[in-house]
Amino acid sequence: MDSEIREVLSALRDGKISEDEALLKIKKKPFEDLGYAKVDLHRGIRQGMGEVIYGASKTPEQIAGIIRSLLDAGESRVLVTRLSAEAAVSLKASGIELRYYEKARLGIVGEMPPAGGIGRVVIATGGTSDIPVAEEAALTAEFFGNETVRLYDVGVSGIHRLLAHSDEIMSASVIIAIAGMEGALASVIGGLADCPVIAVPTSVGYGAAFDGLAALLSMMNSCASGVSVVNIDNGFGAGYLASMINHMTAGRD
Amino acid sequence: MDSEIREVLSALRDGKISEDEALLKIKKKPFEDLGYAKVDLHRGIRQGMGEVIYGASKTPEQIAGIIRSLLDAGESRVLVTRLSAEAAVSLKASGIELRYYEKARLGIVGEMPPAGGIGRVVIATGGTSDIPVAEEAALTAEFFGNETVRLYDVGVSGIHRLLAHSDEIMSASVIIAIAGMEGALASVIGGLADCPVIAVPTSVGYGAAFDGLAALLSMMNSCASGVSVVNIDNGFGAGYLASMINHMTAGRD
Amino acid sequence: MDSEIREVLSALRDGKISEDEALLKIKKKPFEDLGYAKVDLHRGIRQGMGEVIYGASKTPEQIAGIIRSLLDAGESRVLVTRLSAEAAVSLKASGIELRYYEKARLGIVGEMPPAGGIGRVVIATGGTSDIPVAEEAALTAEFFGNETVRLYDVGVSGIHRLLAHSDEIMSASVIIAIAGMEGALASVIGGLADCPVIAVPTSVGYGAAFDGLAALLSMMNSCASGVSVVNIDNGFGAGYLASMINHMTAGRD
Amino acid sequence: MDSEIREVLSALRDGKISEDEALLKIKKKPFEDLGYAKVDLHRGIRQGMGEVIYGASKTPEQIAGIIRSLLDAGESRVLVTRLSAEAAVSLKASGIELRYYEKARLGIVGEMPPAGGIGRVVIATGGTSDIPVAEEAALTAEFFGNETVRLYDVGVSGIHRLLAHSDEIMSASVIIAIAGMEGALASVIGGLADCPVIAVPTSVGYGAAFDGLAALLSMMNSCASGVSVVNIDNGFGAGYLASMINHMTAGRD
Amino acid sequence: MDSEIREVLSALRDGKISEDEALLKIKKKPFEDLGYAKVDLHRGIRQGMGEVIYGASKTPEQIAGIIRSLLDAGESRVLVTRLSAEAAVSLKASGIELRYYEKARLGIVGEMPPAGGIGRVVIATGGTSDIPVAEEAALTAEFFGNETVRLYDVGVSGIHRLLAHSDEIMSASVIIAIAGMEGALASVIGGLADCPVIAVPTSVGYGAAFDGLAALLSMMNSCASGVSVVNIDNGFGAGYLASMINHMTAGRD
Amino acid sequence: MDSEIREVLSALRDGKISEDEALLKIKKKPFEDLGYAKVDLHRGIRQGMGEVIYGASKTPEQIAGIIRSLLDAGESRVLVTRLSAEAAVSLKASGIELRYYEKARLGIVGEMPPAGGIGRVVIATGGTSDIPVAEEAALTAEFFGNETVRLYDVGVSGIHRLLAHSDEIMSASVIIAIAGMEGALASVIGGLADCPVIAVPTSVGYGAAFDGLAALLSMMNSCASGVSVVNIDNGFGAGYLASMINHMTAGRD
Amino acid sequence: MDSEIREVLSALRDGKISEDEALLKIKKKPFEDLGYAKVDLHRGIRQGMGEVIYGASKTPEQIAGIIRSLLDAGESRVLVTRLSAEAAVSLKASGIELRYYEKARLGIVGEMPPAGGIGRVVIATGGTSDIPVAEEAALTAEFFGNETVRLYDVGVSGIHRLLAHSDEIMSASVIIAIAGMEGALASVIGGLADCPVIAVPTSVGYGAAFDGLAALLSMMNSCASGVSVVNIDNGFGAGYLASMINHMTAGRD
Amino acid sequence: MDSEIREVLSALRDGKISEDEALLKIKKKPFEDLGYAKVDLHRGIRQGMGEVIYGASKTPEQIAGIIRSLLDAGESRVLVTRLSAEAAVSLKASGIELRYYEKARLGIVGEMPPAGGIGRVVIATGGTSDIPVAEEAALTAEFFGNETVRLYDVGVSGIHRLLAHSDEIMSASVIIAIAGMEGALASVIGGLADCPVIAVPTSVGYGAAFDGLAALLSMMNSCASGVSVVNIDNGFGAGYLASMINHMTAGRD
Repeated sequence: MDSEIREVLSALRDGKISEDEALLKIKKKPFEDLGYAKVDLHRGIRQGMGEVIYGASKTPEQIAGIIRSLLDAGESRVLVTRLSAEAAVSLKASGIELRYYEKARLGIVGEMPPAGGIGRVVIATGGTSDIPVAEEAALTAEFFGNETVRLYDVGVSGIHRLLAHSDEIMSASVIIAIAGMEGALASVIGGLADCPVIAVPTSVGYGAAFDGLAALLSMMNSCASGVSVVNIDNGFGAGYLASMINHMTAGRD
Repeated sequence: MDSEIREVLSALRDGKISEDEALLKIKKKPFEDLGYAKVDLHRGIRQGMGEVIYGASKTPEQIAGIIRSLLDAGESRVLVTRLSAEAAVSLKASGIELRYYEKARLGIVGEMPPAGGIGRVVIATGGTSDIPVAEEAALTAEFFGNETVRLYDVGVSGIHRLLAHSDEIMSASVIIAIAGMEGALASVIGGLADCPVIAVPTSVGYGAAFDGLAALLSMMNSCASGVSVVNIDNGFGAGYLASMINHMTAGRD
Repeated sequence: MDSEIREVLSALRDGKISEDEALLKIKKKPFEDLGYAKVDLHRGIRQGMGEVIYGASKTPEQIAGIIRSLLDAGESRVLVTRLSAEAAVSLKASGIELRYYEKARLGIVGEMPPAGGIGRVVIATGGTSDIPVAEEAALTAEFFGNETVRLYDVGVSGIHRLLAHSDEIMSASVIIAIAGMEGALASVIGGLADCPVIAVPTSVGYGAAFDGLAALLSMMNSCASGVSVVNIDNGFGAGYLASMINHMTAGRD
Repeated sequence: MDSEIREVLSALRDGKISEDEALLKIKKKPFEDLGYAKVDLHRGIRQGMGEVIYGASKTPEQIAGIIRSLLDAGESRVLVTRLSAEAAVSLKASGIELRYYEKARLGIVGEMPPAGGIGRVVIATGGTSDIPVAEEAALTAEFFGNETVRLYDVGVSGIHRLLAHSDEIMSASVIIAIAGMEGALASVIGGLADCPVIAVPTSVGYGAAFDGLAALLSMMNSCASGVSVVNIDNGFGAGYLASMINHMTAGRD
Repeated sequence: MDSEIREVLSALRDGKISEDEALLKIKKKPFEDLGYAKVDLHRGIRQGMGEVIYGASKTPEQIAGIIRSLLDAGESRVLVTRLSAEAAVSLKASGIELRYYEKARLGIVGEMPPAGGIGRVVIATGGTSDIPVAEEAALTAEFFGNETVRLYDVGVSGIHRLLAHSDEIMSASVIIAIAGMEGALASVIGGLADCPVIAVPTSVGYGAAFDGLAALLSMMNSCASGVSVVNIDNGFGAGYLASMINHMTAGRD
Repeated sequence: MDSEIREVLSALRDGKISEDEALLKIKKKPFEDLGYAKVDLHRGIRQGMGEVIYGASKTPEQIAGIIRSLLDAGESRVLVTRLSAEAAVSLKASGIELRYYEKARLGIVGEMPPAGGIGRVVIATGGTSDIPVAEEAALTAEFFGNETVRLYDVGVSGIHRLLAHSDEIMSASVIIAIAGMEGALASVIGGLADCPVIAVPTSVGYGAAFDGLAALLSMMNSCASGVSVVNIDNGFGAGYLASMINHMTAGRD
Repeated sequence: MDSEIREVLSALRDGKISEDEALLKIKKKPFEDLGYAKVDLHRGIRQGMGEVIYGASKTPEQIAGIIRSLLDAGESRVLVTRLSAEAAVSLKASGIELRYYEKARLGIVGEMPPAGGIGRVVIATGGTSDIPVAEEAALTAEFFGNETVRLYDVGVSGIHRLLAHSDEIMSASVIIAIAGMEGALASVIGGLADCPVIAVPTSVGYGAAFDGLAALLSMMNSCASGVSVVNIDNGFGAGYLASMINHMTAGRD
Repeated sequence: MDSEIREVLSALRDGKISEDEALLKIKKKPFEDLGYAKVDLHRGIRQGMGEVIYGASKTPEQIAGIIRSLLDAGESRVLVTRLSAEAAVSLKASGIELRYYEKARLGIVGEMPPAGGIGRVVIATGGTSDIPVAEEAALTAEFFGNETVRLYDVGVSGIHRLLAHSDEIMSASVIIAIAGMEGALASVIGGLADCPVIAVPTSVGYGAAFDGLAALLSMMNSCASGVSVVNIDNGFGAGYLASMINHMTAGRD
């Protein structure tokens, strides 16, 4: 933007335009020119590190088009979330070199970056049914350059399974606690760990689980010390935030 | 009842009444005479072991009257639940020898019975704010003749506090798990223990605790193995049920 | 576990390892070795009496594998819950000798054990639509060695149907009260019976039944005397808990 | 109204006004003149039998004024609902001869009418805490000329108490079933009785009673056969509807 | 039952059995024999007038069996509710002479009885989408011998459509007001009519209709004067209750 | 109606009927004749400008019939809402010249009218998934003669996208703000704009979006200054209301 | 703002500052200077016509200070909403000439402006308890220069009361429909009127009114044709929006 | 712990105890000795940096006792949350040197530490009523050694107020977004910022705010990119987590 306003200012200084014309031109500058805001929140942490496409409401053609233009623009990798298996097949058929992770419903173009950041991101689930959400979180974190540790099926009704992994939990940089019926997982991990814990309620369960509401409320009530909550089934959001926290220093000095 | 029907039958056999009259008399017998139902559910487990008065909606005069008639009828002890401190003062002033437990809002007349049953009833709470409900449960269990163990403030966000009591938990006969914000307690105890666990959600907490709803839903979702749930803040109900389970064999053979 | 730690201790005493090495080895022992926790909550009451597999989120191949390893390990019987008819066919085709109970969606390998425990477990339902949940509860109880009595379609809007079974109700050891629209069943049975009552709300009904919420809330409010509640449609949990209560003395002396 | 339209028609016939003027006058007649609607729903069943004032949002002066104008207009009796004790004292102090029923929060001026209608209106409650709502219902029914039978504290957790009154229930003309925690009462009575049952949920209870929501949902689900529901704590509405049903024939021939 | 007890009494009087034996026999009589309760709530108002089968959870074979046994027992007509079109075809194929009403999902065997009762039952709906529930109500009322008047699509957002039928509304004996999104219908009709109004919320609508919850709550709040509510979509219940009210005098003298 | 009443008045004046007969005839006039109410709310703003058919619960045959009769009656254009693609094909096959807008599920017969009104109607959406609702709103507004501006995918998590359109927002006559997960859009636009804002929550989203409830509540809480809310997904309602507001003066003088 | 940017431009043109300095100064201008946004949404429609202070969370001293600075700045009138009676007394005592409207909890400084706009704003309420919210709406509308018509206690359960005012309703420019228990009012008025209807649910009522939730949901479902909804009890918001709509043309040419 | 187990091992090696005795001793070690868990979650980030007491359910005497023992143990500062003004007065009277922050309901003993961490913690609120929660968050963050920036009353309905602070937002290390009615704040800030955003819903508002539920759901739905949510009104939790994130590197290398 600066250059555009500068042009106006030059023209004014050079007497090519009047003060009123300059005023008008400056006021008309579209907002995005001012640099106040990031280009697109969903589009990744740092230019050159990878871009994200939300695949749910797009056709394979649209997704392919966006991927191509990103790669053309020099992007080295692209993450497509909520991608159906059918759409993945279409993408591959159209020549996109994409690895598809069926459980996580993610597609990734390009190589994963080397892991960086402060430490490791631990992803823990209460049961095996929570694994799809966990994989979405783990792969997202890896896509943004984090080392991950998966602790699956360590729900609190068998607390020993969780405690057997005390080392991983206590040495984590960030922990993502994912649970449906047993929203309790976030509380217990929050108590064991000394790092930020991101809780993800899942819609797993039946009856009084009410599609994740029980886990959501349970997790909200555990927020005393380092635990915060993202939306039901929002594995991507948890992985993204975990990466952001795990790279805290990188972008600050 | 038997004797009353028998009277009718005798009268019929003796020709004092007709068949029609006998039929009418039998049909008119009030239902309770048939022995199908217990006299009053709230009134204790076994005649002679203690009676219970729900104090919430009764005046001190009414409560005193009921206590006196129970004692006159040979009852050795009486438990008054949801008794306000003011009502307790009034009762004592009117000559009732009553011990008042302020936290639990319970009044007890007569000595506690000797502890019996299969084993011990463990009462665990997530926090210190849950203690009033826990005391209601513990004293109720003691009133019905159970040995109790209190494990207070062993919430799951500090799991070591709970695990430090693994012995008590693993050797319990019945466990009452009481928690407000951290409904997770029931799940964790359910996983450690090998006995029935009665979960009591409490209205403790704020915000998304929604007066106990979060804990209630969380506990309902832990019901996989030996855990069941009673109403929010229902310490009496939990203590009563625990006693019933802990005396299972006593009444059966 | 003991034997493993004992090995370490022997090696230390015999001078084969240093004190530091012994310390390290002991600390590294996975938690389950320490005996603090049951091996797996879902896996049955007593070693040798039967194991349980939650079939909902597993492939027939996975289930078959687990069954085989359990039988190899000497298990005499296995219960598979939430098993679809298709998965049952696959299991049989793969050579597993399994009896499939379609209504209850249960598969059982091996013979039912002889009935033991304190007395009989009565399973009552409000309507005929509640029967699938009831069968899950009843077969689970039988699988763990309990005599069962089925009282189906005895909902409170026809109270005589229930009262006609007063004998069964009053002589039960534990009662499982299962109802959808008429959550009232638990209250009425709780009033008639002198034993623990486990209430199971079902998702049966329409309109203001709200998928079991109405029955759940209704049952929670009946918890005054010996009644507690498990999750909506959780027949297995009710049967398991009933068995636990009905075998109270067996494991305690 | 007729007389007013008639005046217009006379004037037209007599040539005093033109057709157009007549048309305009008739169209301008306020709607209530056309007799399409009752004067005021809350104001009672039949002119001369009694009028009702909703006292909740009115000052004693306003209430006194309305009472006086009703009596002046020849009304023989007036019912004031939701009347506070203080307002009742004020009314009496201002010279209104009013009987005040504290539990029901009702004030009545004038004598109760003789009981009429098809039969008796039975008012049953689950517990003693429901009695205020029940008294509001019973006195309302009596105010409109119905014989009433009160069956209080016959909740379903002690079913014998209810069954002991089978005669009153089976011979009732209309039954009002009032219950808070035990919304089950409506179902059981609905099954015993052969007449319309009006269910009134109350806000009595705690925890999962959620201010009457549990009872409301429970009662909605009992609506199979002759049971319908009015608002939480709406004793007046139930008494009014019961009277309407109990006088069905009176107004039809 | 009487005859059975009478047999026992005769045997006693004749000395064929002892007093003790008589006592035992009488106590063992199944409850339903005592005449305390109706045989089956769902099964109609009066013996000989028609029976009802709830078709939702029954196979065509089961339904056919029940119909045949009812007809054999002398029943002149049978109503099957919640009957799918496929089941109706099966029933006809198996030789049952049944008229099927597709919208209402009702099947009727035998002729409709002549209309009786105090007056007419008016069935009004807010929109055309509410008609299936309305037809269930109307046909149920006709099946039990009531004259019906259908006022469909008279929702309050076009109040003139409703007012154009003021005559039918004001001369009705009972009114069934059925509405989904516009739960307001019950309030307006309740204000116009001078007879009991049964409100039926429907699950019609979208968004904030929340499957009938909005209409249900709206109708509950209209219960001031003669309006009561049955379950969402419960056309049968409304028709049955309307018939009960419309026949009030018939059964009472 | 006037003419009909006039006839009665003429007859009276001419002595052909008596005053009583005239009175009766006038009272019997059906309500709709009195002109108190609009013919049908859903049927458009002004006779001759276009009619609307709610297509959801009608067969293609019914819709075709209504369209034909409207066109025969001189209607120049017809809007069919909630029209499925299949029904649109059927309509075309039956000879109706209809343009089908698939996303909006709208069918339109006849030409769009020239745009009029005070100014432009801006339709803004939070995301691309909200576009179907937005198109329903935009096409409805155009159908009733409004110029529209579409601002799609300007959700508040990328505020610059919205601010880049400040001109359109600040010069709008009415704004329709449509958002699912990000109900915040209405608040932000309400703060930027100086005209009425109609908020439309959508059922887009997952998890704690709860089918539009989150957006609905969020929007209700933004209602401070010029913002009001219509039902979830109700694009038609928003477009209709926007047109009504944008034509405020046209119909008033 | 213009003048400030103009100063920068002048300085640049005159060579007093460099281009870079000018660029920096312009970018640093606080946002509000750019004219992109209204100064304060709550602060009224048009400069000079009146300002609004939200009184709820402010001390009388703070309110007095704001009023004085507004008057000093040339404001001719000020509206204070949610003002307690005590605060009003304090304001007067501190010398502010303020008229206090107790029911509406509004304080107004300065004269009401002459009524302008397209037509009249009609404010209708379902009952007398809704009047405080209605007065807040009516006085707000008057404060912003609108003629108002009050139609109170015209709830739909006595539809004639509403219809008697058909003239006012049909000739209104905007209608505000305010109702608690009877949310139906908005639907009925929406059907009668040919202008925008703003619905305001109130927290009046008891039981299933759930503090305005029932009315809110009911009104949301009426949004088909010209009806939209603001927050529960939000009389100010409705009055403000009504004024905005009623002045549509004034600000557009 | 190590030293204690080492003692056992030494004793074994030295032949002072048998292998069995060693085994027993090791198994009996209380869990906390094993170092698996932190001592107390609520008690601060790092020993020596400050301790926290939850004041809500404790008497001033209890609080004073805990403070004294912490200071005796060498703690340099103590934070007491949810401390009432009365309790603060008591504490001071008992000789504790405590600064009381009334709005935040916090008491602090000892000096604030110097600010450290990666950068600044920005605390933003939607309105002035949210300030108490914000102060709790800000002071907590300062107590744990963070520089804070307060941006109050920057709600999204006046977006310019927020954008005027773009610099602070874009250069923040962590942002705490606190809002009641306008839960939208978190979304907008999440879009502007490039750092973790912790959203705190507040119970501020009325009507459809439902005590913070609306804001909570709204914030849950914004969780796409770096936004997570803590419990309603949980200022402490947000401040604690912000500090944890802002000190990410400090504790890791």
